Amino acid sequence: MKITTIEWKNNKIRLIDQTKLPHKLEYLDIDKLEDLWQAIKLLKVRGAPALGAAAALGVYLGIKDLKTKDPAVFNKELDRVSHYIAGSRPTARNLFWGIEKICSVARKNKGKDLAALKKLLYEEACRIIENDKSSCRKIGEYGSRLIKDNDTVLTICNAGILATIDYGTALGVLYRAKEEGKKIKVFSCETRPLLQGARLTAWELNQKGVDVTVICDNMAATLMRQGKINKVIAGADRIAANGDTANKIGTYNLAVLSSYHKIPFYIAAPVSTFDLRAQSGKDIPIEERDPREVSELLFKRVIAPKGVKIFNPAFDVTPRNLISAIITDKGVIRPPYNLNIKRIVRL
Amino acid sequence: MKITTIEWKNNKIRLIDQTKLPHKLEYLDIDKLEDLWQAIKLLKVRGAPALGAAAALGVYLGIKDLKTKDPAVFNKELDRVSHYIAGSRPTARNLFWGIEKICSVARKNKGKDLAALKKLLYEEACRIIENDKSSCRKIGEYGSRLIKDNDTVLTICNAGILATIDYGTALGVLYRAKEEGKKIKVFSCETRPLLQGARLTAWELNQKGVDVTVICDNMAATLMRQGKINKVIAGADRIAANGDTANKIGTYNLAVLSSYHKIPFYIAAPVSTFDLRAQSGKDIPIEERDPREVSELLFKRVIAPKGVKIFNPAFDVTPRNLISAIITDKGVIRPPYNLNIKRIVRL
Repeated sequence: MKITTIEWKNNKIRLIDQTKLPHKLEYLDIDKLEDLWQAIKLLKVRGAPALGAAAALGVYLGIKDLKTKDPAVFNKELDRVSHYIAGSRPTARNLFWGIEKICSVARKNKGKDLAALKKLLYEEACRIIENDKSSCRKIGEYGSRLIKDNDTVLTICNAGILATIDYGTALGVLYRAKEEGKKIKVFSCETRPLLQGARLTAWELNQKGVDVTVICDNMAATLMRQGKINKVIAGADRIAANGDTANKIGTYNLAVLSSYHKIPFYIAAPVSTFDLRAQSGKDIPIEERDPREVSELLFKRVIAPKGVKIFNPAFDVTPRNLISAIITDKGVIRPPYNLNIKRIVRL
Repeated sequence: MKITTIEWKNNKIRLIDQTKLPHKLEYLDIDKLEDLWQAIKLLKVRGAPALGAAAALGVYLGIKDLKTKDPAVFNKELDRVSHYIAGSRPTARNLFWGIEKICSVARKNKGKDLAALKKLLYEEACRIIENDKSSCRKIGEYGSRLIKDNDTVLTICNAGILATIDYGTALGVLYRAKEEGKKIKVFSCETRPLLQGARLTAWELNQKGVDVTVICDNMAATLMRQGKINKVIAGADRIAANGDTANKIGTYNLAVLSSYHKIPFYIAAPVSTFDLRAQSGKDIPIEERDPREVSELLFKRVIAPKGVKIFNPAFDVTPRNLISAIITDKGVIRPPYNLNIKRIVRL
């Protein structure tokens, strides 16, 4: 089955409603900017690269029906739309990158008439989508060289098809390894609070015929101690210039455990995830989300007593010293990260 | 509010149905051995020390109405009842210890008439309950010396009132520290899959006016890195002669994280939790439980796709090198554990 996470179809944004998985594969057709904002906020679409595409398509959606012929009015509206989308979630670098890509095309072509400009913005959004597809395949190609036959790989959250357009970053590495005939097994951390590992990663690996076992997040250490994990591979929401990497809460936990058990720990992400203006992890804003994500199981069943405090950061930062390598679409980056990230990202 | 986890009342075993918390404080009155077995299996009563009491009361419940006057028939039935209860769950040492305590009284008094013997067994079960109360208070007394004013303590699962008769082991240390006027804050790992940390620990700390915040298990590393945790304290289900400690899955994870972040990691347990016949953690059987505990949120809502494999060990083993000290009712044990455990347990 061909799975496409997000695309432009019938003059609308079509995306998989990921809050419905694994129960239903349901598509949303979005033609209102407010609905896209909600879809991002509520994680109907999520995953850094997919958010890059969503943001770019969103900017186009927001301006495509503008009736004005006045460039000043157009630009003001483009600004408003961009700021609005940028306010949906704070951590994933690609969201802002997607917006910037579109806005930069508008800036470069500010002399053009607005119909022609709209067309250029549409084409840029499509290019972002096509580039994501080929980026993920390059990440897969570079990354699968690190995967050996019979490896058992641990992953967290979802850095797969559902976090990109159609192939994945961390999981793209595993899909490629499988395509090359390597036998692999995957353990997927369920990834509390919203269980993207149990719901999304297990679902898509299962769809693609990859051997997957779900564990609770607190079981990873035991598997490592038992010698059952050869590699750990995770995606990224934002990577600082020095290599510090923000990703789903729990990633840092796995990095410490990997270091203790001497297991390679890899990050897989396209270069659009790097934020060279962030010098280190301290410069990355971490989203803190609704406590009810923790205290109510998928908002359906209360588990914590009323009045008890909840701490619910959506991401953590893994310091570069715990990262064995960063697999990108432009090659594998190894320490010293300060030097090598700049060298590769500016290629 | 006075909370009593388990007691003998009106010729029945009365216990709190912990699967109903934090929604309802509901008591079960058990007068059939099969119902007790189910209550243990389904974690209506849980926690190593409470299981010691449940097992002892259970043996008495199982033989108290025997009509025979033939000691051979009585002893055969005592054996059957003991084996039956012992088959409910494999890991917690105290369950077997509770059964052994009762059976040893029966062995020592095998000449007595059966009515008198039943009375002795009843008294032994009551003594186990009274001893648990005083043991927990001694653990609290010894342990609270390790807790400083303004400490923030991380704990996992429930090693509190609900895991004992009425005071707790790990949480007993915190209750005592509070009674001594120390200001403390507690972070409680929710403890997937069955969420004893979110449901039980948060509930009882809240009842007792202790400042508590619930986190998902995968957030502990981030708190530690932020310098927010001063101490980690957990209970134990079985402690081997060398100090290796089996406790709720996720405990080993916290021990590795504590070591990495140079935070003291303590185990709190009565001496009845030590199993000197287990030379190391390798000799401790680890219960693997129903996969649906993971794949279905509290058996109510499916989260993992059908057909996906699940790994669901209920416990893990923390090797002694990661344990700063073991707080017992006979004092605080520090390394070298091989020597010091034997010295204290045999007191």
